[in-house]
Amino acid sequence: MPDALDNLWLDNLCVVLVGTRNPLNLGAAARAMSNFGVRRLRVVNPYDVAFREARSAVGAAKLLANAEEYASVADAVADCGLVVGTTAVGRRELQHRLRRLDEGARFIHRRMRSGAVALLFGSEKVGLSNRDLSHCDWLMRIPTREEHGSMNLGQAVAVCLYELVRAEGGRRRSALAASEPNTKKANANSEDLERLTQVLFEVLRASDYVKPRTETSTEEKLRRLVRRLELSAVDADLLLGMLRQVAWKLGAGEKPNQ
Amino acid sequence: MPDALDNLWLDNLCVVLVGTRNPLNLGAAARAMSNFGVRRLRVVNPYDVAFREARSAVGAAKLLANAEEYASVADAVADCGLVVGTTAVGRRELQHRLRRLDEGARFIHRRMRSGAVALLFGSEKVGLSNRDLSHCDWLMRIPTREEHGSMNLGQAVAVCLYELVRAEGGRRRSALAASEPNTKKANANSEDLERLTQVLFEVLRASDYVKPRTETSTEEKLRRLVRRLELSAVDADLLLGMLRQVAWKLGAGEKPNQ
Repeated sequence: MPDALDNLWLDNLCVVLVGTRNPLNLGAAARAMSNFGVRRLRVVNPYDVAFREARSAVGAAKLLANAEEYASVADAVADCGLVVGTTAVGRRELQHRLRRLDEGARFIHRRMRSGAVALLFGSEKVGLSNRDLSHCDWLMRIPTREEHGSMNLGQAVAVCLYELVRAEGGRRRSALAASEPNTKKANANSEDLERLTQVLFEVLRASDYVKPRTETSTEEKLRRLVRRLELSAVDADLLLGMLRQVAWKLGAGEKPNQ
Repeated sequence: MPDALDNLWLDNLCVVLVGTRNPLNLGAAARAMSNFGVRRLRVVNPYDVAFREARSAVGAAKLLANAEEYASVADAVADCGLVVGTTAVGRRELQHRLRRLDEGARFIHRRMRSGAVALLFGSEKVGLSNRDLSHCDWLMRIPTREEHGSMNLGQAVAVCLYELVRAEGGRRRSALAASEPNTKKANANSEDLERLTQVLFEVLRASDYVKPRTETSTEEKLRRLVRRLELSAVDADLLLGMLRQVAWKLGAGEKPNQ
């Protein structure tokens, strides 16, 4: 296997740790990232403000020190074209498509060729919240036992990154893969999709479609819907233009330039 | 994925931790074993005699309490037909055949069908000694970066066991596929899509988005857009409900039933 750092594509992967409680887990995640050649660490509201000094980041102190800090998942994934949440699932009813890690890794590779991909890990106790999940395109699961599905955070990060590096090795073994033409259009990034979600929400609120009591769940529902559409950047822009015009007509937005 | 404990072969795998210093790593290894359905833990000369109470063995306290303790590697692997050592390699001159984890996992599977296999992990600082290695049939390496090959012990155990379960899963994929929830939904048919296109068109006309001179080309543009979305029947219905509500609010349609 060639040195993983030769694979420039790994810089298109962002590991996003949401609401991590134990700084030792942040350090362990950073170490695993360094082991597998992934450099971009983002943290959203970690519980311990001094997480950057975690001793568990053996050999990865600089990576941890360079972690980018965000106040919300939306901000942390804004520039990412694909957002994948990790889950132990259990019996939780799923609103998202669920892929097993090895299958998911193949999808992630394809998308990493054309843009940034965010891989989200929730907090140790509760994982990702429904609100966090509403920013995800789909979910990925490590095939653990049903009776004991929940992994240690640092171990889960290590297993996911191992699978991504392994699968990439597999792809490179195939000469065909390299010559594959990339005809797929650029995907809308999370910032575009979030803007679209918000304007759609305003339009529906102005149309009395949104009920005040269920505003939050409706917003999450809309965000998931918009993400399921897998829009190209061009189509996202087209839809945004339409919705802005409708919002203006409903008295819920400024007149757009046309 | 069905319960990994259904796979009786996993009881032919022994995880052997040699000279482990930090009891937290022993606990973490036990947790990963439980996650992936491996029960047989053996420890050789752990530094901390109280390792059995390690709090990091979340959900795996019993497994850790049942660990078998040995005074030498020779004793710990005595009943095993195959002994595999793990290594970060580095530049150490190898006396053994070295296999990458995914290749090694396939060999291990084959041997587990007929007898016990030991998978050895050395201490955090120095790994397996030359003496330990002399008990091994061959060595296995996780494909980490050359510049930072050394993994945290608990993470290395998790990655190795994941690969063993994954490779076994591949063999049984057809059986597994049937038990996994089918999250792929039926596609919307052309009639649904056409209805959606028409209501969208009405909404946009009522919002002055559609210019009278280009009505026909705008309608075609909308139809192509709607088709590109590759909507499921459920999502098409959801969008239709939203658009009808907006159309009604704009005075361009009847009040929908909600």
